[in-house]
Amino acid sequence: MTATILDGSALAKSMRAELDEEVTAFKEEYGVTPTIAVVRAGEDPGSVWYANAIKKTMAGRGMEAQIHVLPETATQEELADLVAKLSTDPGIHGIIVQEPMPKGIDEGLVKAALSPDKDVDGVHEVNAGRLAMVAPVGRPEGVGPFFTPATPAGGMEILRRHGVELSGKHAVVVGRSNIVGKPMALMLMRENATVTMCHSRTADLPAVCRQGDILCAAVGRPEMIRGGWIKSGAVVIDFGVNDVEGKMVGDVAYDEAVEVAGMITPVPGGTGPMTNIMLAKNVLEAARRQVTK
Amino acid sequence: MTATILDGSALAKSMRAELDEEVTAFKEEYGVTPTIAVVRAGEDPGSVWYANAIKKTMAGRGMEAQIHVLPETATQEELADLVAKLSTDPGIHGIIVQEPMPKGIDEGLVKAALSPDKDVDGVHEVNAGRLAMVAPVGRPEGVGPFFTPATPAGGMEILRRHGVELSGKHAVVVGRSNIVGKPMALMLMRENATVTMCHSRTADLPAVCRQGDILCAAVGRPEMIRGGWIKSGAVVIDFGVNDVEGKMVGDVAYDEAVEVAGMITPVPGGTGPMTNIMLAKNVLEAARRQVTK
Repeated sequence: MTATILDGSALAKSMRAELDEEVTAFKEEYGVTPTIAVVRAGEDPGSVWYANAIKKTMAGRGMEAQIHVLPETATQEELADLVAKLSTDPGIHGIIVQEPMPKGIDEGLVKAALSPDKDVDGVHEVNAGRLAMVAPVGRPEGVGPFFTPATPAGGMEILRRHGVELSGKHAVVVGRSNIVGKPMALMLMRENATVTMCHSRTADLPAVCRQGDILCAAVGRPEMIRGGWIKSGAVVIDFGVNDVEGKMVGDVAYDEAVEVAGMITPVPGGTGPMTNIMLAKNVLEAARRQVTK
Repeated sequence: MTATILDGSALAKSMRAELDEEVTAFKEEYGVTPTIAVVRAGEDPGSVWYANAIKKTMAGRGMEAQIHVLPETATQEELADLVAKLSTDPGIHGIIVQEPMPKGIDEGLVKAALSPDKDVDGVHEVNAGRLAMVAPVGRPEGVGPFFTPATPAGGMEILRRHGVELSGKHAVVVGRSNIVGKPMALMLMRENATVTMCHSRTADLPAVCRQGDILCAAVGRPEMIRGGWIKSGAVVIDFGVNDVEGKMVGDVAYDEAVEVAGMITPVPGGTGPMTNIMLAKNVLEAARRQVTK
């Protein structure tokens, strides 16, 4: 058996076309251009690359990205002040503060300056709390509107658009970061999956992974998850983005996994291309909430 | 084999003695009596009983509980206004808003009026968010101080005081309420357990439960979890409080479970007596944070 490839590049492309129409309609109705501020201190190459990618995605959709760069030597107060100022600027609808922040900066205090309403990457504690407390689908939500981190949201969108049944299925999530693993686990449970959360201390990880009807990998270790760890026919969502001698490699040993899984995201071209489009969707949504409230 | 009984009543008793000393020292140092406001609308019998139990526990420790009761007909605005007023009252260190709230009241809006600093039962989205985002033990926390719901905190305390190893163990949590199941799952993962979150949609629940080195039940269905669902030697934490013909019964079929489990909380006398003492500890902690900040 060879797995169906879950083509994130193709899906992102069709979503961009959908979003273009929504943005056009929004701008016509409200006369407002949805705008994100991308904030960082210093010139971390990954951050520079990602900021430019956001700018390109936003511009392509008729939206705007403002890049705000402080020097590497910026103090915590300067960074927090900038985020606070953008949080009250009515021309800014979404804010993303790029990590890693310079040494000595308390990321928590910087995030505390961020308005939850503009937290389009779902890193603020209020957004994390609402995701943690939201009711399962089909029941009244019980919490206010919130944003979820763009990367796991992209993984969920891939599952949804490919009609993968989640309710009652066993989902195994490997990795417990606040930006991928934990929100992914909570989103899967919201869709009524039974969810096992694994991490570096999990005993017999291969056996646990083999239980997953859906297996999500977000550990940042190249090809750690082998073909033999995958349940036959499982749906594999690989969030890994590892640089191995200049080649981008996922957390899953793709060549082995593709022989066992029922569906799998490739790396590159799987979850990666989805992140930007999910973030752009959140910026439009943030603008809509702010304009209509 | 017969399981070791995890005696929550005895543990709560010894914790009350410990807390008494801490409260005495705190009052001597700061001249402040830690005080909780218990707020409700109407006379739901369970709420009346619980409010009185809180009052008794607090009084016994030299702390204070104020019971604030609005009529059943109170509007959402009246309830939220009371909570907001107590949130800014320097004489009140902790607030608990009892549920169920009267029909037509949006619990989310009432909770939004609650100061997270006084949310000693961990129901506010900021506290839920910090629990969701806190780092595993042994790593820098990365979030501000927070409170967790008293009931699962009591379950964790039982595990801790009995020296139950959690790191690398497989914990299965049945039930996903915001007040027990979900926070319990997050607290177990924080202690480096591998955690499976189960619920009403879980397929083959008995088989999933049998994987648990630690099995936590919080479903509110009397004796649903049978002896055959329990891994031999597992530690069973039963949060169930079900009234069956006037008798209090847990979610676990105790007589069967006690023959299979390694350790088990009885009902009554297990997790129940721990809730109040954990809440009282949180009131002291809230008072300390407010007095020293």
